[in-house]
Amino acid sequence: MVVFSVLYPAQSGGRFDQAYYRATHIPLVQDAFAKSGLKNVEIQQGLSAGDGGPAPFVAMAHLSFESPEALQASLTGPRAAEVFADIANFTDIAPVTQVSAKDA
Amino acid sequence: MVVFSVLYPAQSGGRFDQAYYRATHIPLVQDAFAKSGLKNVEIQQGLSAGDGGPAPFVAMAHLSFESPEALQASLTGPRAAEVFADIANFTDIAPVTQVSAKDA
Repeated sequence: MVVFSVLYPAQSGGRFDQAYYRATHIPLVQDAFAKSGLKNVEIQQGLSAGDGGPAPFVAMAHLSFESPEALQASLTGPRAAEVFADIANFTDIAPVTQVSAKDA
Repeated sequence: MVVFSVLYPAQSGGRFDQAYYRATHIPLVQDAFAKSGLKNVEIQQGLSAGDGGPAPFVAMAHLSFESPEALQASLTGPRAAEVFADIANFTDIAPVTQVSAKDA
């Protein structure tokens, strides 16, 4: 399994609409990439840092794909532009993205 | 569910022993916190950034607990010191930690 993580760093004055993110954007991601091998989406909403300070990230999404090829097919597929364009509807924070191997 | 995430930022010259991390540290975490409400541990090994550049994080671990109280009990419990002390055995990178609410 390969994971595509999208992390939104907390920023002073940054806009992030959690309701839109959950109710509209994530379902769009699931619908758009289901046919190209998206297996699971996990959403984490930042509450705090581990020491109780401010959360480093407003939100994190971890998209699990069945293979690196499935991830590539999704990110370059016919619905990728629609997914990326929707980001401006809930945030002005530039996300940090990572591709990871997943186990355990 | 509440998630305690431990993210190890990639650093020039940073040391990170993936084999020790998986074979020794994560099993220690699972054993140490199982009784205080740890439900699941997910490990992600950084491969690249989403655009193909260097991975922002060497590794990420996401520990799911049944409740905020279970997380607190684990982090302040009798085996927490043992877990924290083991980190120096596989890395010299100071991790970024976050507490998140998890759904979807």
